[in-house]
Amino acid sequence: GAESGLIRATLFPGDGIGPEIAGSVKQIFKVADCPIEWEEHFVGTEIDPRTQSFLTWESLESVRRNKVGLKGPMATPIGKGHRSLNLTLRKELNLYANVRPCYSLPGYKTKYDDVDLITIRENTEGEYSGLEHQVVRGVVESLKIITRQASLRVAEYAFYYAKAHGRQRVSAIHKANIMQKTDGLFLKCCREVAEKYPEITYEEVVIDNCCMMLVKNPALFDVLVMPNLYGDIISDLCAGLIGGLGLTPSCNIGEGGIALAEAVHGSAPDIAGKNLANPTALLLSSVTMLRHLELHDKADRIQDAVLKTIAEGKYRTGDLGGKSTTTEFTNAICDHL
Amino acid sequence: GAESGLIRATLFPGDGIGPEIAGSVKQIFKVADCPIEWEEHFVGTEIDPRTQSFLTWESLESVRRNKVGLKGPMATPIGKGHRSLNLTLRKELNLYANVRPCYSLPGYKTKYDDVDLITIRENTEGEYSGLEHQVVRGVVESLKIITRQASLRVAEYAFYYAKAHGRQRVSAIHKANIMQKTDGLFLKCCREVAEKYPEITYEEVVIDNCCMMLVKNPALFDVLVMPNLYGDIISDLCAGLIGGLGLTPSCNIGEGGIALAEAVHGSAPDIAGKNLANPTALLLSSVTMLRHLELHDKADRIQDAVLKTIAEGKYRTGDLGGKSTTTEFTNAICDHL
Ligand SMILES: CC(C)[C@H](C(=O)O)[C@@H](O)C(=O)O
Ligand SMILES: CC(C)[C@H](C(=O)O)[C@@H](O)C(=O)O
Repeated sequence: GAESGLIRATLFPGDGIGPEIAGSVKQIFKVADCPIEWEEHFVGTEIDPRTQSFLTWESLESVRRNKVGLKGPMATPIGKGHRSLNLTLRKELNLYANVRPCYSLPGYKTKYDDVDLITIRENTEGEYSGLEHQVVRGVVESLKIITRQASLRVAEYAFYYAKAHGRQRVSAIHKANIMQKTDGLFLKCCREVAEKYPEITYEEVVIDNCCMMLVKNPALFDVLVMPNLYGDIISDLCAGLIGGLGLTPSCNIGEGGIALAEAVHGSAPDIAGKNLANPTALLLSSVTMLRHLELHDKADRIQDAVLKTIAEGKYRTGDLGGKSTTTEFTNAICDHL
Repeated sequence: GAESGLIRATLFPGDGIGPEIAGSVKQIFKVADCPIEWEEHFVGTEIDPRTQSFLTWESLESVRRNKVGLKGPMATPIGKGHRSLNLTLRKELNLYANVRPCYSLPGYKTKYDDVDLITIRENTEGEYSGLEHQVVRGVVESLKIITRQASLRVAEYAFYYAKAHGRQRVSAIHKANIMQKTDGLFLKCCREVAEKYPEITYEEVVIDNCCMMLVKNPALFDVLVMPNLYGDIISDLCAGLIGGLGLTPSCNIGEGGIALAEAVHGSAPDIAGKNLANPTALLLSSVTMLRHLELHDKADRIQDAVLKTIAEGKYRTGDLGGKSTTTEFTNAICDHL
């Protein structure tokens, strides 16, 4: 803890390939001499009534206490009567903003070589309210909820982030031409916050048009902020531009200064335990965690080593067209540290 | 009419560049000897109380009578107390399926050269219900409505279309992991219809993952069918892959066998009246109208001439990087007929 000069951080290795890629992070943090002490928590085997999910209350308490954590993939077990693990985390910890930096990896070729975007997604409401019902047989409805409070706090985070990272422009993505009240309120909140940041260009882009522009020319955008479902869609689209979810970091910002970094790809049960998994997304997520802790030197060192290893191309895991094991790839990164 | 051997079709030239690009279609249809007699209708200058919009009741009656039509861009005039023209058409004519063929244009280079997709969008309900309200100050909600009736009819159209056009696969796009009841009902209806088409592969893809796959490798998809908002988003994303809305045709299918082909781009008031507009989207839309009428010879001839003109690259409008006027481009197409 504090007296050792170490920062305690919660680690959820997660399911499937989770423990292997979390192992890479631990190894690299050790080699890079990061002042982090991990507090590991595993997904439970029984439903915890306090969380209504397989996530234990103790693991949530750990994040609340440490205020910082790293999370691997969690497969929500099939069956009824419990909540999705990812959604439980978002709701219980009030993880109101999901931040995904998305940049072209030097040397890893896709159709796009100029991607440098940040998507900031409202993470607690909108289409994810869970409020649905059948009106009559054959007629069902879902409620999308937008609140001033949640819209303001994600907008505030977006502009704060843009300024702190020297970004020029914030685009609010919406469909207020159709959902005038809900998306209209979201835009109203973004405008209010934008006024406090005259040095940052603010614009509003309709989601369909945004998707078209993104695939034509992603360089048109810088920071994008949007309601939950649009964020879900656009952040995956952006990940696709640079190669997929296996390469994109993500960090969730919660009330009270919580930051929970997260690899958003799946748990890949088919290759779990075979030393074949690509730890890049979790590693780059751990870098966002370090930046949140203002440990920029460590963050830069690790990010550079990961990017160099991928760029050289000698050690790449199977998903990137290489033949390396997770261990070989991780060792190569350590050699670059 | 009938005695002349001509098929009567409604033509809405629309606003802005609409009349110019509609002029191209008329010229090309004449040169190609298409057996179409146009019945032109214009957007009104006053709100028609029967449509609650600037669209006149007579113009809707014309489509209902002819069962086939072509529509240019319509800008919804700003102000309160009337409905959007596009939405009025969809609701009044029950245009339940929006079909957008999206294919790479030979010789017009984008980052993708293997796009050949059909998006089929439910066009009447979902997030476009128009039902929204403020619960308390700072809390608003929108209703998404999914019905068995509308889901079945768009699914049926998608499979009918796939079979009629020799397509192999239909992908239903959804977010049923979050909206289990609404998107769940949509999927249930798709599955029911899929069972009647054992020769067509049916799959279900979550919308975020679909967007990632589309930008990574659009060849993974064939026919996509989805609820209204996802269709709005994905069809524009797909248009982006091949160069934008200026190049993509669209056709709306309505109850009672109505087909209203439509250029879905904007009315571009900045270049209106200057003979600079690109008529490609409206021309390719008119081709889908001809195919709907089973005039495949004429459709092939016009489509070939348009694609050849673009591929040669000698006559291209400004939006495609050329210097030709609308007239020059249109004449070049006529030369290829
Ligand atoms: C798994 C799913 C519920 C989740 C979401 O929709 O938020 C995922 O797509 C994500 O982006 O984290
Ligand atoms: C203009 C807008 C209301 C419309 C829609 O959202 O349907 C447009 O984007 C479209 O796709 O035709």
